[in-house]
Amino acid sequence: MTRIRRKFWGWGTEDQIVPEGEATAVLAAAARRFGVDDLSGVPPPTEAEFALPAPRVRVPASLAHLVRDDIHERLVHAYGKSFADSVRMFARDVPHPPDLVAYPESPDDVARLLEWAGGARVAVVPFGGGSSVVGGVEPDVGPAYAGTVSLDLARLDRIRAVDTMSRAALMEGGLFGPALEAGLKPHGLTLRHFPQSFEFSTLGGWIATRSGGHFATRHTHIDDFVEALEVVTPAGRIETRRLPGSGAGPSPDRLFIGSEGALGIITAAWMRLQAAPRFRAAQAVRFRDFHAGAEAVRLILQAGLDPANCRLIDAEEARTAGAGDGTNALLVLAFESGHLDQAGRLAQALDLCRAAGGTWETVAGAEAHRAGAQGAWREAFIRAPYHREVLVPRGVIVDTFETAITWDRFAEFHADVTARVSRAIVEATGRPGGVTCRFTHAYPDGPAPYFTFQALGDRARVLDQWRQIKAAASDAVIAGGGTITHHHAVGRDHDPWYRVQRPSLVGAALSAAKAALDPVGILNPGVIADPPTGPVGTRGAMAAGPAPRV
Amino acid sequence: MTRIRRKFWGWGTEDQIVPEGEATAVLAAAARRFGVDDLSGVPPPTEAEFALPAPRVRVPASLAHLVRDDIHERLVHAYGKSFADSVRMFARDVPHPPDLVAYPESPDDVARLLEWAGGARVAVVPFGGGSSVVGGVEPDVGPAYAGTVSLDLARLDRIRAVDTMSRAALMEGGLFGPALEAGLKPHGLTLRHFPQSFEFSTLGGWIATRSGGHFATRHTHIDDFVEALEVVTPAGRIETRRLPGSGAGPSPDRLFIGSEGALGIITAAWMRLQAAPRFRAAQAVRFRDFHAGAEAVRLILQAGLDPANCRLIDAEEARTAGAGDGTNALLVLAFESGHLDQAGRLAQALDLCRAAGGTWETVAGAEAHRAGAQGAWREAFIRAPYHREVLVPRGVIVDTFETAITWDRFAEFHADVTARVSRAIVEATGRPGGVTCRFTHAYPDGPAPYFTFQALGDRARVLDQWRQIKAAASDAVIAGGGTITHHHAVGRDHDPWYRVQRPSLVGAALSAAKAALDPVGILNPGVIADPPTGPVGTRGAMAAGPAPRV
Repeated sequence: MTRIRRKFWGWGTEDQIVPEGEATAVLAAAARRFGVDDLSGVPPPTEAEFALPAPRVRVPASLAHLVRDDIHERLVHAYGKSFADSVRMFARDVPHPPDLVAYPESPDDVARLLEWAGGARVAVVPFGGGSSVVGGVEPDVGPAYAGTVSLDLARLDRIRAVDTMSRAALMEGGLFGPALEAGLKPHGLTLRHFPQSFEFSTLGGWIATRSGGHFATRHTHIDDFVEALEVVTPAGRIETRRLPGSGAGPSPDRLFIGSEGALGIITAAWMRLQAAPRFRAAQAVRFRDFHAGAEAVRLILQAGLDPANCRLIDAEEARTAGAGDGTNALLVLAFESGHLDQAGRLAQALDLCRAAGGTWETVAGAEAHRAGAQGAWREAFIRAPYHREVLVPRGVIVDTFETAITWDRFAEFHADVTARVSRAIVEATGRPGGVTCRFTHAYPDGPAPYFTFQALGDRARVLDQWRQIKAAASDAVIAGGGTITHHHAVGRDHDPWYRVQRPSLVGAALSAAKAALDPVGILNPGVIADPPTGPVGTRGAMAAGPAPRV
Repeated sequence: MTRIRRKFWGWGTEDQIVPEGEATAVLAAAARRFGVDDLSGVPPPTEAEFALPAPRVRVPASLAHLVRDDIHERLVHAYGKSFADSVRMFARDVPHPPDLVAYPESPDDVARLLEWAGGARVAVVPFGGGSSVVGGVEPDVGPAYAGTVSLDLARLDRIRAVDTMSRAALMEGGLFGPALEAGLKPHGLTLRHFPQSFEFSTLGGWIATRSGGHFATRHTHIDDFVEALEVVTPAGRIETRRLPGSGAGPSPDRLFIGSEGALGIITAAWMRLQAAPRFRAAQAVRFRDFHAGAEAVRLILQAGLDPANCRLIDAEEARTAGAGDGTNALLVLAFESGHLDQAGRLAQALDLCRAAGGTWETVAGAEAHRAGAQGAWREAFIRAPYHREVLVPRGVIVDTFETAITWDRFAEFHADVTARVSRAIVEATGRPGGVTCRFTHAYPDGPAPYFTFQALGDRARVLDQWRQIKAAASDAVIAGGGTITHHHAVGRDHDPWYRVQRPSLVGAALSAAKAALDPVGILNPGVIADPPTGPVGTRGAMAAGPAPRV
């Protein structure tokens, strides 16, 4: 099969360039926002513009057929897809490409590659789809290693078994979203895990990063869908039991869920599935402001209604997406089920929205979620990752950060984070920018706010400007009691703040567990747990950023 | 406040003796079941019948006010409440009483006690309500320790803070069920965690053992209700953040949930709460056999209906409880909500029951769950732990074990476990006994079957007979792919099978984590994780039991 190659410098594949008309509109909007006449850019980089150092390490002949070291592969695996990654690619700045890219074809191959890497003291950075926005896949591991290999799981892409009675399937870690769903469809089953990166991310990556998916409530993370795991570590293999529930000690699966490649390579997982939805009920509801909408979300969650979608978007963000005139917050509410009519649940949720001051116009039909304000927002959501290639070369900073906080602290937290990031934008760029917020997920005890910030930087120093804003945002989140990430993961970029958030003894326990599984410390050094030699001190894009001030 | 003392030799407090009429009925039923004329027993033990060795260790004067060493305290803390514990108490056999019983009054006290114990090489066995049925609180730690202290958390019993907006409360680990609910009630909130041991177990104990609670589906274990933890370890304190959700690394809370006192002492927890239920809908449904009922449960769970109660009881177990004539399996189905009418959900579930061949007669009113067959079963459930004091001294073996298994394997698993345990009963006792099954909890991907076995042993060697049956049951569960425990925990009794179930590298990782938190290895040695000195080799009541044959 010939696949169209992924862009090494942006989102999607090489044929997925943002059409000129769309690019013009995106740029015009940015120019209007920042009150400038035009935004001139630089063209995307080409491979010929990079002179990568020769690989420092080689695999033995028996593994050579699994490994590539051409420039395209090394560039694709040099970064994830964060704002900082994009800036550095447009700056033709790739100081830490992997020496090699390995494509194991079986768990045995993974074990052999880890054995070689341990002996050769080569750092192994697992790579699923490479959609990390937090420096999770960047082979920036410090000087303690003889070299780096990016371990791409893409060839571990089989569905090994489907159990239609229990609704579960054993699937390999390198399966991409679309292939996974296509493989399940003939069985009438679906995982329904649709992160924004769905097309370009993998099952193993979702599990390793506690990916946040389709469902806005209840089963928000991939965590709850994991029935059992197959993991290859430098110390050996792990297979947990397929169990619907267990009380036998701390959950073995939970040790690896969120371990970001630092404890082992997730080669396969039994995942809990469901029937494709046949019943849907959706409605967009307007609120006079974000906090009135938040109150509705709280009431809906605490009533136990569990909407599949419950995305609250503030007025400005709705306007930017073409889903409102900027005067109202918008709540996109949807219920779905493979078995039960959902009209009653939607009606109950709307009663609670009314109590919180919500108003709405009915859009009829099952396709309501693709129509009107919801539809406009959805389209903007899907296109956003592509627009970075239009904006970054012009010095426009558009980035997001996300967290979670309990309801009692939310209003103050939201005000403080917004104020601090707005201030940081002015301090960093000399002009005001924008900070908007939505809820991507919500819980009975609090929401998961997702902030977007926009600023106009100077192309020559936009990375430092971004770092200053990102650090202020991270400081504010941690100082306010939030989590440094709700579903984007920790990676290298969030590491300094993760270490403040995480009790130090939990860090010590995780590093001790790592030493048992990865005695040489080759697995994704610098992420989540320290190798036996101690912290490696790399922080990816944030290396030059300020330390947290909390 | 003067509390009535707990029985050291049975369930409940010293005033809660099974009334003579009830005892006579229980014995008559047992005599009928085993075809014997009468069952003669021995009286319960008294303190005067025990000559415990003098405590081997003493605390420094600064801690003396926290410590007791009288015989009643040492006997209460010598065992949990398992069948084997009861047999050994009636045999006046207490080889491993704690040297001391400590009642810390604050997390600081806990830290000071751990500091002393570490220096003195005294094993610390945490004790909540002492309702363990798996040897979790038995201070049987082998010869490597200078002594043992049972750390009773009962004086850490405050509700420190209630957040009504987020519906959460910070509560101390030693709170017993009734006091916890009584403290929340004025706030209109409830934890609604009602294990069978509710009256005699604590919040910290529930979290340390992954207790299974009120809800038969969805949030079956205490795990999901934990918002944040406060833990005291020998290496220092841990406080995790209050977060509704997080994707920042492996969950810190999940490391301690189910750690059974081996990694730290849970001194307090922020727990997610809910409104008291105002809407209920319940119905008991009959099925021609257990497997038809199981099919209904599978359909209900996979449809996403989430009944609060979904207890399927096989025909013989229903008959024993006075909830049927032994010809039909019984499904006790109940929905509840603090906010939403549940009649529609019950109707949807009953449609699925009908499809699986279920039939029912309507019992009207909100109290339906206390009436009819459900009511009879519920009463039997509550009284069961008390009946042990009537049956054990007569050599009657009544015990339970519980597990979970995916639907695809359930029918074969159920048949195999039942056959192997039935055979073991005959081999151990020379006569047939009974093995029955119910589902206590259920999931979309499988049920949690809970087996009860009954046998008539010889008083002189009933402990060995029980061990033989229990080992056969555990072997069958593990060989069939189940978990050694769904919600009773591991303790010392399940340890040999837990080590087969758990991937060995996960064990190595947990023991490494323990070494970071408990460097001397004083915390509950022999449970869940090995101390730095290696396995301590104690297995509580199962010490003489056969090794697993898988």
